[in-house]
Amino acid sequence: MARTGRRPGTTQTREEILRAAREQFADLGYDGATIRGIARAAGVDPALVHHYFGAKQRVFIAAMRLPFNPADEVRAIMADREHDHAESILRFFLRMWDDPQSRDPMLALVRSATSHDKAAEAVRGFMNDLVVHHISKELGLPPLRAAMIGSQLFGIVLLRYVVGVEVVRSADTEEIVAMYAPAIRAVIEDGDPARPTA
Amino acid sequence: MARTGRRPGTTQTREEILRAAREQFADLGYDGATIRGIARAAGVDPALVHHYFGAKQRVFIAAMRLPFNPADEVRAIMADREHDHAESILRFFLRMWDDPQSRDPMLALVRSATSHDKAAEAVRGFMNDLVVHHISKELGLPPLRAAMIGSQLFGIVLLRYVVGVEVVRSADTEEIVAMYAPAIRAVIEDGDPARPTA
Repeated sequence: MARTGRRPGTTQTREEILRAAREQFADLGYDGATIRGIARAAGVDPALVHHYFGAKQRVFIAAMRLPFNPADEVRAIMADREHDHAESILRFFLRMWDDPQSRDPMLALVRSATSHDKAAEAVRGFMNDLVVHHISKELGLPPLRAAMIGSQLFGIVLLRYVVGVEVVRSADTEEIVAMYAPAIRAVIEDGDPARPTA
Repeated sequence: MARTGRRPGTTQTREEILRAAREQFADLGYDGATIRGIARAAGVDPALVHHYFGAKQRVFIAAMRLPFNPADEVRAIMADREHDHAESILRFFLRMWDDPQSRDPMLALVRSATSHDKAAEAVRGFMNDLVVHHISKELGLPPLRAAMIGSQLFGIVLLRYVVGVEVVRSADTEEIVAMYAPAIRAVIEDGDPARPTA
């Protein structure tokens, strides 16, 4: 009475791949790690890694247990014409970071990236790949401009969740959205003045 | 042929006070440390600590070897009616962080605050005191709004100097100023629509 169509051993194989991926990212950085190398370290065919996870970016997300793929979320938000994009990005981001279950793996990654050079190398490559090749395309903005939105979001991460500055830590989500969305909108809209605002 | 009017032993006494301050901030956090306690640990009169450094905030800045007092800089920028305040804040902040000599002590503090609970406690209290009691007054904004400007600035710190995401790390200062100043202006001006823009 299997609940899914997965064959026995599938979960174990996936975990083997993710364990190998974590090692490869830690040892070689994001840019140095390859699907081929991860597959070799896990003792599986590269096609299987691709079948389970997709591109390297998605392998990294699964390996680090990140709760979502930022590029997928930004795509969904930009496709929604009924809500203000800046507010939606901010509200989604705060929801993910306010919930301890989704926050913990992200916080672990940020902490390790700020204190260990090897971890920084992996996060640096992952974020650059994500911004330059994915987020900027979803937003229709140049890479640096897309990164400036990421900068605004990770500033909140630093003050609210990492350092925990009281006035930011205790602020109501909607209070932050009301104050900060115009700032995010300023970066989005200056890059494309023709974009509708809501 | 002394260059200054300081008596012999002054430099040594100052260093003793700063060493004691670093220990007290590390042991008790920012809120727990007191001028009186620092003086006692240094074996001097509290009035001497105040004479050399001023309020606790300034003792912290000196103890951590921070290159400037953010409140003083914001006051000077806001008093200047000839330049756009958002651009001036951003340009000053990037100049301090781009120069390794002023960057190193700030970076050390950010790194320790993101990886050690004790250091986080000290930085957390310092930043809250600074934002709530000083920066917000200099800007004429509510504390949370002042903190949201800090959030935007520290987002750049995280991406450009700590993690070193390539697209942000390699960006020209003036390119960042041009893209990011409108976002900082949005937070400043929404809090006070009557403020002149330049």
